[in-house]
Amino acid sequence: MREVAILGIGMTRFGELWDRSFRELGIEAGFQALVDARLSSRDLGALFLGNMASGSLIEQEHIAPLLMDYAGLAGHHLPAIRIEAGEASGAVALHQGYLAVASGAYDFVVVGGAEKLTDVPDVTANRITGATADQEWESVFGATLPGLWALIARRHMYEHGTTREQIAQVPVQAHEMGSKNPNAHYRNRITLEQVLGAPPVAEPLGMLDCAPLSDGAAAVVLGPLDRARKFTDTPVAIRASVVTSDTMALHHRGDLTRLDSTIVAAKRAFGQARKTASDVNVVELHDAYSISALLALEDLGFVGKGGAGTAFAEGRFAMGGTPTVNTSGGLKAQGRPFGAVGVAQVVELVRQLRGQAEGRQVSGAQLALAHSVGGTGATSVVHLLERTN
Amino acid sequence: MREVAILGIGMTRFGELWDRSFRELGIEAGFQALVDARLSSRDLGALFLGNMASGSLIEQEHIAPLLMDYAGLAGHHLPAIRIEAGEASGAVALHQGYLAVASGAYDFVVVGGAEKLTDVPDVTANRITGATADQEWESVFGATLPGLWALIARRHMYEHGTTREQIAQVPVQAHEMGSKNPNAHYRNRITLEQVLGAPPVAEPLGMLDCAPLSDGAAAVVLGPLDRARKFTDTPVAIRASVVTSDTMALHHRGDLTRLDSTIVAAKRAFGQARKTASDVNVVELHDAYSISALLALEDLGFVGKGGAGTAFAEGRFAMGGTPTVNTSGGLKAQGRPFGAVGVAQVVELVRQLRGQAEGRQVSGAQLALAHSVGGTGATSVVHLLERTN
Repeated sequence: MREVAILGIGMTRFGELWDRSFRELGIEAGFQALVDARLSSRDLGALFLGNMASGSLIEQEHIAPLLMDYAGLAGHHLPAIRIEAGEASGAVALHQGYLAVASGAYDFVVVGGAEKLTDVPDVTANRITGATADQEWESVFGATLPGLWALIARRHMYEHGTTREQIAQVPVQAHEMGSKNPNAHYRNRITLEQVLGAPPVAEPLGMLDCAPLSDGAAAVVLGPLDRARKFTDTPVAIRASVVTSDTMALHHRGDLTRLDSTIVAAKRAFGQARKTASDVNVVELHDAYSISALLALEDLGFVGKGGAGTAFAEGRFAMGGTPTVNTSGGLKAQGRPFGAVGVAQVVELVRQLRGQAEGRQVSGAQLALAHSVGGTGATSVVHLLERTN
Repeated sequence: MREVAILGIGMTRFGELWDRSFRELGIEAGFQALVDARLSSRDLGALFLGNMASGSLIEQEHIAPLLMDYAGLAGHHLPAIRIEAGEASGAVALHQGYLAVASGAYDFVVVGGAEKLTDVPDVTANRITGATADQEWESVFGATLPGLWALIARRHMYEHGTTREQIAQVPVQAHEMGSKNPNAHYRNRITLEQVLGAPPVAEPLGMLDCAPLSDGAAAVVLGPLDRARKFTDTPVAIRASVVTSDTMALHHRGDLTRLDSTIVAAKRAFGQARKTASDVNVVELHDAYSISALLALEDLGFVGKGGAGTAFAEGRFAMGGTPTVNTSGGLKAQGRPFGAVGVAQVVELVRQLRGQAEGRQVSGAQLALAHSVGGTGATSVVHLLERTN
C-alpha cells in the first residue's frame, strides 16, 4: 500500500447558516481544499462524501454526484461516493479516501463532509437524531441520543466517582477553545455555573452539555505521500486509519462506561503507526455530549479508566496539555453538522501540524489523533496524522 | 493492486416480504454468502453495505454496524461501512469492497445490499423515490423518477424512431426470464398486449414498464484472487470496477437519449479489463424503467445508437443472445429493493459464470458485465467479471 498524505484543507463556518444550502456549503469547502492543495480539478480522481441524514433532512439522497455536479465537474464523470456512519460519516469517508489512494487506484481525491441541519423541518425529531441508535430497541421506545448518553454519564458517576462538576468542565473548555476559532458555531465563553444551571436535557446532562445542531461542511485533499511535496511544503502523512464497530444498542454492552469500538480502534491505530498515546501532541475527539469526551480520553489511553473526570478538571487536556484536546472547540463549540464533523476534526489537526492554528496553536505539534463516534459508539474511527517536515 | 475475486454469493427472495425486517433480510443474505464462500466469520475483515434510503424508509441510519451487530459479529469490532448512491448503492459498495481488497488493507470482506420498501409509510412519496433526482430543480416541481424517464423515452422515440411496442418488449422479456428465477418478485409471464394496455404511470410508460418496489438483500464475499482456490473451485475474477457520475438534473445534459456516465464507465471498464463489448456473454443491466434498458444497451456498446429498440424487439438480447441480458429478470421481474439491486445483479452473474443458473443458464458464459444506475444516471457503475477455470 502507498503512503497517503493530506495536501489541502477547507471548511465553511459552522453555525445556523439559514442563507446557505447544502450544496453551497459542500462546494465551498471542496473548492477551498482544492485551492489549498494547489490542485487542478483536472487532477482529481474521485470524491468521497460523508453525510448522515440528507434523505430525512433535505429529502435528497445521491448527494455525492450532486456536489460534483454543482461544483461544475460533472463533465469529468468521476466517482462520487457517499458514506454514512452517523456522526462518524466524515471520518469513515476519510478511511475510504485513504484506501482509494493507498490502493493505487486513484492518485488525488477529495474527502468531504457536509450536513444541513437548520432551516429544515423536524430536525430534532427522534426519527432523525435518534436514527443512529437502535431504532427497534431504543429509539422506538423514546430513548433519545442525549438520553442514552445520560445513562452512560450516570453509570460513569456511579462506577468511577466522576462528579457532575467534572463533567461540566468539558463544555467550559470547549467554549474557551471555540472563542479562538473564527469558524466556530459558538465563540462565547461559558462558566461552570452556567453549565450547571442550564435547563436539563436528560439528567445529568443539561443544555450546555450537548453539542448544537449546525450547518457546515469540511473537506481535505489526499494524495500519495511521495508526490506530496510537489503540492505543499507541509504535507501531513496519514499514519493510521482505522474504522471499528460495536453493538448498536447500549443494553448489549458489557460495560456502559467505555466504548469498546474506540478502545479497539485506538489499539489498532497505534499498532499501525507504531506509536503510543504518549507520542500524541494534539487530539480532536468526539464530544457530542460532555460525557463523550471523558469516555474518549480513557478509551484512547490518555488517562486511566475512571480518571478522566479528575484529570480534565485539573486542566490536563487544556492548551499545552498532554495532549491538548479539541483546540477547534470540538463538536460542542465549533459545531456539529453530523456528516461534516469527522472531516472538520482533521482540518483542525492539519492546521495544528502545519503550525497555522494562529491563536490556538499547540507549540511543536508533531503527531495528532482524530477520534470520531457514530451514535453511542456502534462506529468509532481513529486517524493518526504526522507532520513530515 | 491485488487482483480480486468473488468467493461466495447469497441473496434473499425479492418481493413484498411483510413478515421480514430490514435486519433479518440483511443478515440472511450475508450468512448465505459466507457459507457459500466456506469462510469463517473469524476471517472476515470488513462489511460494505449498499442502501439508498433507510433513514426515510425505516427511520434508521447507521445500518452497516446494525447488520454486523445483528449477525452476532459486533464483538469482532470490524469496519462496517454504508454506501449510498441511489439504486446504484449496492454496485458502488462493491467498488468499495474491491478497493479494500485490492489495496491489501483487507483480505476478505462482505459486500451487501439491502432495502426494506414495503410495510413502510409513504414509500411512493416523491420525497423518497424522487430523492435520487435533483430535489431543488426536479423533485420539488413534481417531477418523479418515472416522469423523468418518460421524458427520456419520448425523446428516444422522437430522435431514433423507437416505437412504444419496441419499448414494451423489455418487460415482456424480463418476466419471461423472471419466471425461471425462484428468487424473483414476479414469476408470471406477461404479454405485449398487457404491457401496452396497462394503466399509464407517466406516458409513454405504463404500470408494467416500471420496476416494482421490493424488499430484499444480496451479498457477495470478496478476497484476493491468488488465495481464492482455497475457498472455491469456481472463483470469479473482478476484471474491472468503475464508478462514474454525471449531472443530477436532466436539463443539464447535452442529449437526453444517452447516459454519458454509462458510456464513460463502460469505456473505462473495457480498458481496465482489456476486453470489448463483443467479448461479453451475459449482462445484468439497469431496467428500472423499460426505456432504461434500451439506453443501457446502446451506452454499453452492445448495439449502435438508436438501434436498441429494433434489436431488442428482434430478440437479439434474449436467451442465447449476443449478449444475453438480465437472466435474473432484471429490476423489473426479479425486483427492485433499491440498495440491493447492484449486488443482486452480481450474484446472478456469478451463478452464470459458475454454471449454476439452472433453468436459465447461458451456455459457456465466460465474461459478464454488471451495469447499475442511480436516479437518471448521476451515478453509473460497470463491473466486468470473468470465470477463471
